[in-house]
Amino acid sequence: MDELVEMARNVAEAITRRVKREAVSKFGREVAMGADGTPTLYIDRVAEEVAMDIIGKKANILSEEIGFIDNDADYTFIIDPIDGTRNAAHGIPFYCVSIAIGKRDGSTDDVEYGLVKNIPTGDVYEAFKNKGAYLNGEKIRASQDYSDKIFVLTLGKSGNEKTWRKVNLHTIRAMGAAALEMCLVASGAVHAYFMPREILRVTDFAAACLIVREAGGEVYNADGEVLKVPYTLNVRSSVLAVSERKIMEELV
Amino acid sequence: MDELVEMARNVAEAITRRVKREAVSKFGREVAMGADGTPTLYIDRVAEEVAMDIIGKKANILSEEIGFIDNDADYTFIIDPIDGTRNAAHGIPFYCVSIAIGKRDGSTDDVEYGLVKNIPTGDVYEAFKNKGAYLNGEKIRASQDYSDKIFVLTLGKSGNEKTWRKVNLHTIRAMGAAALEMCLVASGAVHAYFMPREILRVTDFAAACLIVREAGGEVYNADGEVLKVPYTLNVRSSVLAVSERKIMEELV
Repeated sequence: MDELVEMARNVAEAITRRVKREAVSKFGREVAMGADGTPTLYIDRVAEEVAMDIIGKKANILSEEIGFIDNDADYTFIIDPIDGTRNAAHGIPFYCVSIAIGKRDGSTDDVEYGLVKNIPTGDVYEAFKNKGAYLNGEKIRASQDYSDKIFVLTLGKSGNEKTWRKVNLHTIRAMGAAALEMCLVASGAVHAYFMPREILRVTDFAAACLIVREAGGEVYNADGEVLKVPYTLNVRSSVLAVSERKIMEELV
Repeated sequence: MDELVEMARNVAEAITRRVKREAVSKFGREVAMGADGTPTLYIDRVAEEVAMDIIGKKANILSEEIGFIDNDADYTFIIDPIDGTRNAAHGIPFYCVSIAIGKRDGSTDDVEYGLVKNIPTGDVYEAFKNKGAYLNGEKIRASQDYSDKIFVLTLGKSGNEKTWRKVNLHTIRAMGAAALEMCLVASGAVHAYFMPREILRVTDFAAACLIVREAGGEVYNADGEVLKVPYTLNVRSSVLAVSERKIMEELV
């Protein structure tokens, strides 16, 4: 496993270096149509290629654009090479690499290692199953401090007016990169991340789920059920990551 | 003026270095009560001290915590040492230094140089009156591309439900640092920044106003009037920064 963790860190570092070398003006160019009918952007393609080059046949790969690559290995890398693609394409400095590692044919419950790297700042969030969550090597905890609540909601095109009304007396953020927004729950920066529509895939949240849970938080779907999703691109979920259960009860 | 621009850059650089050296856990500590009844946080205090040390008596200073310091100089620095204080205090990686330079007793119209530095990423937005706007030294233009609109709205505690409804079919962001969000309009990343409540002060937007305008955009208040505010902390404004006039007409 240590070797795989090292490989995950190398992938994140290599994608960051590669993305920073590219001209931002090219990020948003459409280079192909993905299997799910949404266009593949140049930045997604470039980042995915970097990941595949490094991982090779040493693990199976489940990635947003390319789907599942079965290398007959014990472990699978569940990857979103660029989470927050629209931010990256527009030049909003909030997007990341997301990498989870788990035994093949597992679910979010079986992820043993998760890494989310904020590309514009270089911050690295990591978690090891049953061994805690870390930001740049320092242990982090989801916040239990509710004097100044901040909620991260996905707004616009979302129809979650009901939720918005509920939290309207608190501070709201909408940053545009699910994995990284979930990590803000893990580090205690915000109290909830809520995407009420069923559009996120396991590649988006596998790493961040472990990071939130190892930091003492929990991850649900919009119905308040603890989130558990197998390693497949066929399932789309709503996601509600919270610092503690009572925040979920407030929002669902 | 060249010497003052160099001084502004040094202030931004020194604040960035100082802030990065501090423990994030100390950022949010309240160290005093400001003149306006809102608490001064440790991070604001530290950043303001760095600015004052460098500027000394070479210019007048108008700053959020300390007010106006009249050094009988020709030029005034209009400074927000940390814009997005709550983000900084919580650990949301989106906050900045904002510095404008203009002749004393002027208004936002008379700003000759503006600088906004994103502290977590190091990105520097600058504008020189009648000479354009720049991101890390590269010329920037407000976006005229409307195929994929993104609006930055201040949500929560704001009551701007009406605006939210209007743009609900587009992508919405709420990042939490006015000066930096306005710069996203200038760089073409987003199409509007809207703070409909009258709470922002000239220290928040003096630099970003020039940056948006030099990038070809415009800055209004929530009534659709072109924004013009004197160098005083006594005036609080709504702010609507847009890539072009028709976006303002859509939102007001």
